[in-house]
Amino acid sequence: MGGYNIPKATIHRLTRYYRCLERFLLNGKSNVSSKEMANKLNIKPSQIRKDLSYFGEFGKRGVGYDVRELMLSIENILGMKKNWSFCIVGIGNLGLAIANYPGLTKARFKLKGVFDNDKSKIGIGLHDDLVIQSVNELEKTIKERKISIGVLTVPGKYAQKLSDRMVSAGIDGIINFTPVRVIVPKQVMLEEIDISISFRTLAFQINLNL
Amino acid sequence: MGGYNIPKATIHRLTRYYRCLERFLLNGKSNVSSKEMANKLNIKPSQIRKDLSYFGEFGKRGVGYDVRELMLSIENILGMKKNWSFCIVGIGNLGLAIANYPGLTKARFKLKGVFDNDKSKIGIGLHDDLVIQSVNELEKTIKERKISIGVLTVPGKYAQKLSDRMVSAGIDGIINFTPVRVIVPKQVMLEEIDISISFRTLAFQINLNL
Repeated sequence: MGGYNIPKATIHRLTRYYRCLERFLLNGKSNVSSKEMANKLNIKPSQIRKDLSYFGEFGKRGVGYDVRELMLSIENILGMKKNWSFCIVGIGNLGLAIANYPGLTKARFKLKGVFDNDKSKIGIGLHDDLVIQSVNELEKTIKERKISIGVLTVPGKYAQKLSDRMVSAGIDGIINFTPVRVIVPKQVMLEEIDISISFRTLAFQINLNL
Repeated sequence: MGGYNIPKATIHRLTRYYRCLERFLLNGKSNVSSKEMANKLNIKPSQIRKDLSYFGEFGKRGVGYDVRELMLSIENILGMKKNWSFCIVGIGNLGLAIANYPGLTKARFKLKGVFDNDKSKIGIGLHDDLVIQSVNELEKTIKERKISIGVLTVPGKYAQKLSDRMVSAGIDGIINFTPVRVIVPKQVMLEEIDISISFRTLAFQINLNL
């Protein structure tokens, strides 16, 4: 992993730091102190500073860490600088939005397959020579193109079945945008994004602020 | 707030519990113990159990709390059972996906305005008598229809300007789906959802799992 000789316990804490930083970023925070991270993570500030000092000087005294910079550094440390291929299952509005999301290509994610079960969509070309394929070709295509990430943007009732099919084809991780939770085996990674949760959280904050 | 006489400190902890539960849910966890919550929040498990016992018996010994049930209970306690009106600024694929997201209406969020600056889109009807309006009518419509939540699904370069305009029209909260961070005054609540972050987090987990 990047030629560093990092204790395993530190690597595990780095993943927790990364997710913590991600949450700060999602909440609009661009700077964070080791103390703020410590509060969220139940890890001593001194431990956090020590772990991060393995990799050089990130933080500035009294200013804290730049959240994005620190996330990028952790990505570098842990060998994230490779390319990832993904596919999208379900080409409705959300699927199309993700297919065209500008931040993904920059972040080294390459779209390698798009699937739908609607015959009127199959065969339509998207960008970069990609053509909407029948979902019947899902497993075959995942294997042939060595796709490691599958994005679920189908109606909720199909989520588990299509997740199972991607798992059986050897997918490494799934991002589930449907409101329905899916279950995957332990070796498959899962991110779930329920758009309505962000609405509820915001309403909750407004309510308390009134 | 719901007729309960809850200490303010408890209310503030409840909001933290709610956000913590939301994160568990996003990570696909449907049951959680007070100890797991305590680890994330740096609050004693006994304090968490005491706070939640104000409102009756939520948890089951040895099983923990049902995450969704507990979130709904907290929503009830804090008077979340009201309707919210929102508008969408930018009717591209993502804007359309949110306009048609099935979980929102169920969660009492009513779409009351849709805006774009593309003349070929203005005047097109969506569901429920909604018609795509020119973004020139943004402030006027927010005031007239008492819209409290604004959803930003525009190209990133327009995000801050349109956020400012919604703030000046008296919006209570903004959900920013653009990859660009926006700054809002303290009295305005903000949720930011960067879709590429979920991809990076997943890749990170896969990387560490390989």
